[in-house]
Formats: sequence, structure tokens, C-alpha cells
Amino acid sequence: MEGKVNLAQKLALFDALWSPKVIGELNGQQVKLVKTEGEYVWHHHDDEDELFLVLEGRLAIHLRDRIVELLPGEFFIVPRGIEHKPVGRASLLLFEPASTRNTGNVDHRLTIEARDLERI
Amino acid sequence: MEGKVNLAQKLALFDALWSPKVIGELNGQQVKLVKTEGEYVWHHHDDEDELFLVLEGRLAIHLRDRIVELLPGEFFIVPRGIEHKPVGRASLLLFEPASTRNTGNVDHRLTIEARDLERI
Repeated sequence: MEGKVNLAQKLALFDALWSPKVIGELNGQQVKLVKTEGEYVWHHHDDEDELFLVLEGRLAIHLRDRIVELLPGEFFIVPRGIEHKPVGRASLLLFEPASTRNTGNVDHRLTIEARDLERI
Repeated sequence: MEGKVNLAQKLALFDALWSPKVIGELNGQQVKLVKTEGEYVWHHHDDEDELFLVLEGRLAIHLRDRIVELLPGEFFIVPRGIEHKPVGRASLLLFEPASTRNTGNVDHRLTIEARDLERI
């Protein structure tokens, strides 16, 4: 059984942008932290819904028909199959299946295969 | 597609203690808020791991061999099969499968069947 997790302590352990770190696993899902700045890449996930909870900063989740603006303490769930592009400087908590590939259907320099994600 | 969710706004919508409210659903899992005070009941979940993230207050998760103390910004995952008893005055975010029964294997006056949970 893992110990308790302090989000601020985990956030202090890394600086890399757009590089999700796994901080918890349960029921085939993972809890991740990610730091963002600037624009990510348009992508979607065929089989995974994805929850973005803002811890610090602000994030604009661009969808093809609108933009969802998130501040700390706000989350949004991007359903599977929906194209999205996160934009902004933020620290995020993600909750999504362990199978989730960060850039979804797109191959990109930021792609990290799910099996290669760092656990912190 | 649901809109964004503001945790503070959702917390302001209810006062009932030990009565989880569903605020998001993804991948067969649910995001819930719950307010606690005093002692809950010892129980376990046969098939569900359960994440407790403290938003406000403090929570002591009693296990049979130790107590895990959580402050705001800290979470703990109780694995399936592990007996636990949450104690304390807090507002919590829960991540767990949609099938999760709040009092697990125990029938109690606080029991709410998963299908009957309120969505807010």
C-alpha cells in the first residue's frame, strides 16, 4: 500500500513541461501531475476520457467549437474522441486510464508512451 | 459534453454530512464531493480502490494497523479489501468506480446505494 501523497511536494520534484508524472494508481486509472506553458498539440484519445484539474495557474482547453477556461479548483472532462489542445501556464492534476498516451492519436516530439511515464 | 466544474461552487450546494455527491463521470469512474464530521463506520470495498483528496479541513483515515493523517492538498488511496474508517471534519474529493457503495460491505444508516447518489 502506497503512503499519502502531498500535491505541493510532488510538484516541487520536477520542472519539465508537458511531461506527465504518475503520482497514484487505482482501478486501472492513474493520477498524474503535469506542468504546462504555451500551446500543446491538437489531439484526441480514441478510448479514454480525460480529466484536467487546475492546481495553479490557468489553462484554456481549446475544443474545435469553443474554449473552456479553467482556474485553480476547476476541472473539465474531455470525452474520448473529442479533439482538444490545452494552452496556458499551469500545474494540473490529471485523472485518466493507465493506457492514456499523452499526445493521443498524434506522434509529436512531446509524445511519451504510457508505459514510459515517470512515477514520482 | 458536460461543462467545467468549480469545486468551491459545488461544495456550496450542500451541507449533508457523509453523503457523497457526484460531480463528474469518466471511464466508469466517478468524481464525488463529500463533507465529513466526526467518525464514519469501519468498512471495506471488495472490488474498488478509493482515493480521498482533502480540499478543506483534515481527515484521519484509520486503518487496522495505522492512521493516515491528511491535510488540504493531500490524498491517500485505500486499496480494495482494506478496512478503513475516515474520521474528521473535512471536505473531500473522491475518485472511485461508479459501482462504489459508500459504506462498502456494511449496512448502516449512512448507506446510500451507488445508483441513488445525487448528482449536483
